[in-house]
Amino acid sequence: MRIVKLDEASRKNILADLLRRDPNQYGTYADTVQTIIDTVKRDRDKAVFAYTREFDHVEINASNIRVTEQEIEEAIKEVKPELLEVMKKSLKNIREFHEKQRQYSWFDSKPNGTILGQKVTALESAGVYVPGGKAAYPSSVLMNIIPAKVAGVDRIVMVTPPGKDGKVNPVTLTAARLAGVAEVYKVGGAQAIAALAFGTESIPRVDKIVGPGNIFVALAKKAVYGHVSIDSIAGPSEILVLADESANPRFVAADLLSQAEHDELASSILVTTSMELAQKVSEEAERFTSQLSRSDIIRKSLDQYGYILVAESMKEAIETVNEIAPEHLEIVTRNPFEDMTKIRHAGAIFIGEYSSEPLGDYFAGPNHVLPTNGTARFFSALSVDDFIKKSSIVYYSKEALHEVHQDVEAFANAEYLTAHANSVKVRFEEEES
Amino acid sequence: MRIVKLDEASRKNILADLLRRDPNQYGTYADTVQTIIDTVKRDRDKAVFAYTREFDHVEINASNIRVTEQEIEEAIKEVKPELLEVMKKSLKNIREFHEKQRQYSWFDSKPNGTILGQKVTALESAGVYVPGGKAAYPSSVLMNIIPAKVAGVDRIVMVTPPGKDGKVNPVTLTAARLAGVAEVYKVGGAQAIAALAFGTESIPRVDKIVGPGNIFVALAKKAVYGHVSIDSIAGPSEILVLADESANPRFVAADLLSQAEHDELASSILVTTSMELAQKVSEEAERFTSQLSRSDIIRKSLDQYGYILVAESMKEAIETVNEIAPEHLEIVTRNPFEDMTKIRHAGAIFIGEYSSEPLGDYFAGPNHVLPTNGTARFFSALSVDDFIKKSSIVYYSKEALHEVHQDVEAFANAEYLTAHANSVKVRFEEEES
Repeated sequence: MRIVKLDEASRKNILADLLRRDPNQYGTYADTVQTIIDTVKRDRDKAVFAYTREFDHVEINASNIRVTEQEIEEAIKEVKPELLEVMKKSLKNIREFHEKQRQYSWFDSKPNGTILGQKVTALESAGVYVPGGKAAYPSSVLMNIIPAKVAGVDRIVMVTPPGKDGKVNPVTLTAARLAGVAEVYKVGGAQAIAALAFGTESIPRVDKIVGPGNIFVALAKKAVYGHVSIDSIAGPSEILVLADESANPRFVAADLLSQAEHDELASSILVTTSMELAQKVSEEAERFTSQLSRSDIIRKSLDQYGYILVAESMKEAIETVNEIAPEHLEIVTRNPFEDMTKIRHAGAIFIGEYSSEPLGDYFAGPNHVLPTNGTARFFSALSVDDFIKKSSIVYYSKEALHEVHQDVEAFANAEYLTAHANSVKVRFEEEES
Repeated sequence: MRIVKLDEASRKNILADLLRRDPNQYGTYADTVQTIIDTVKRDRDKAVFAYTREFDHVEINASNIRVTEQEIEEAIKEVKPELLEVMKKSLKNIREFHEKQRQYSWFDSKPNGTILGQKVTALESAGVYVPGGKAAYPSSVLMNIIPAKVAGVDRIVMVTPPGKDGKVNPVTLTAARLAGVAEVYKVGGAQAIAALAFGTESIPRVDKIVGPGNIFVALAKKAVYGHVSIDSIAGPSEILVLADESANPRFVAADLLSQAEHDELASSILVTTSMELAQKVSEEAERFTSQLSRSDIIRKSLDQYGYILVAESMKEAIETVNEIAPEHLEIVTRNPFEDMTKIRHAGAIFIGEYSSEPLGDYFAGPNHVLPTNGTARFFSALSVDDFIKKSSIVYYSKEALHEVHQDVEAFANAEYLTAHANSVKVRFEEEES
């Protein structure tokens, strides 16, 4: 991995480099995606079947688009018992963490007869997109479904592209069933997002669409945003390790590589105050890479978006972390908890040398769907918050309104909204006449 | 106002009718807006000045784009002392309500050495868009700024188009100052949104953009979403009154009209179980309309999107409310609190006959920036939540990781992510060799 001394110029260049991976920039496909959406909105099932034929080379129709109970049961049998056990343990941890995110309705009353509050309700329905392809990511299925389940969403539907044999990956189906979802449709790509946003004869319209996907899926989600809600648009994965001379270079290197293996566009960055650590991590990374099964991807990712940045001070190092606003941050320093207090922008923060990032991907409990590409400045991990909404509650007694009615009228009249003023005034017109 | 008996067909037609107002459908301007955004991103200040010349017919430059302290002080002097007093009272209520929305960091520790939690941080910066034009809406300035202030956003900037005299409306400036914002730029339209999203020499890039605007502003916000965060995209205003025979028809009619006066696209709907009330409200509405200053707008709005719907039962009435998912809901029935429990989708709920909706627009405290056009199914009022984000926290001791390390490795290997497995394995390699 290349080692770069941090200064104003290198910081700027690296930030610009990372932002080249912004999925919002792939505007070239936006027209294609819009056409798919418009067609599905108009032709519904017919369009969904046609696109599936075109893109997935599979014939689906109204009678086989939904995964059957039998298919799910067969899928579960295909999963190794050991994996099933691990998935159940993971599920338990994820559920336990998300249950702590629950929010509650509240109200505040005053003796003059006013009640103000917020009523929290779950969304009625949500759609979860699960990518297809050769590899299955059951952890992602759990992470997307459980927050919706904990929030109390009534109807959760999953969509995922069928394989060439017309089937859905058995591990994916098993994870869905474990998480409590049995309504699964064999459709992927922008056409699946359009179907969830507008509904077709076979697929219900939902209130919110979550889950990762390729660039067509990401653009489709952005296009339907506003008509339905979506989670944030995921870009390539990132890890940033903040370390001082106390860190174990072998652990740090292994963790950097764990994100690099995701994708050629993934980014792995070490920010350290120690040139000695920098050099050792670089050596360890080289050693590991040659041993790992996904070494081609890792090499490309590290060459393009891997950096070891050496800072003059911990202060400068932390500033750089906040500028990058990484998806995953590991803090491996002498005082990791204290350093954490200075971190303002990060999707998830892993503290200390045994809090390896993949622990969070699979097992610890917090969600692994996290804001990428600097969006941790303003977005959060997927959570129960994503599947609830809040209605304000206002109650004023006659006496309470009487006390303030002239103020409200004055404010409305100042905005020249006389019908607004009238709606308050009319309630006390008898006393004024 | 037209009176319609509720049945399957009328419900469907009315819902379709209301959705015609969806701002997401005005796709025709999307290309124009994208060009403005791309140009501002590339040419920065130069583009902002040129568009302001073109659209607002005002010359702005680097030395006069920002409102000066002197301009703000002069503005405050122009505002009537009575209005200033009312604005201060309103500000106090809004702040008090939003302070109750604060969310706090939390953690959960277990004796084996694990700590999981969520760290809540405020956004660093936010941009507030305030429309220009003849009328000023200081209530909207307060409602957009206060949640950001309460959340603890460091830097809040406001943008608003200059009038033909190159000045900003004094009431708007006064409201901003009262709410605690003094960084105001004289720029509006899609160019203002682009400037906030990407930054120019004069205008800082921000993390989130909120505030209402015309269709160009709405489309620009959607286009930059993902690059920055935005509030939901506001459509025309709506009120739905749910009433039984106990309601005062004069109050109900006045409240319906208060939303109708906003905009020809605004929608005012009464859903009632009483045909007698329906007729009386219709008569009262006619009587009021002729007396009100904005009667032309009210008439057009009621003709297009005003309905009095008569339901067979309260159950059917409530189902209709949930289907429409109105921005503002008034419940004026014998048991309004009990009926509220059955409401699943509404932006804000006003309970009882003295909780007139304009009370909420101006004074009560809850935010008046609310989800429109059925989006109350999945969006909430603007709140402190909009200006915070959450970072997950994960700490595992060596012992805690040791307990589960084989599970994590097994899960990672099942997804063929061997570098993920390796990052955990490497921490215990000594004991295994």
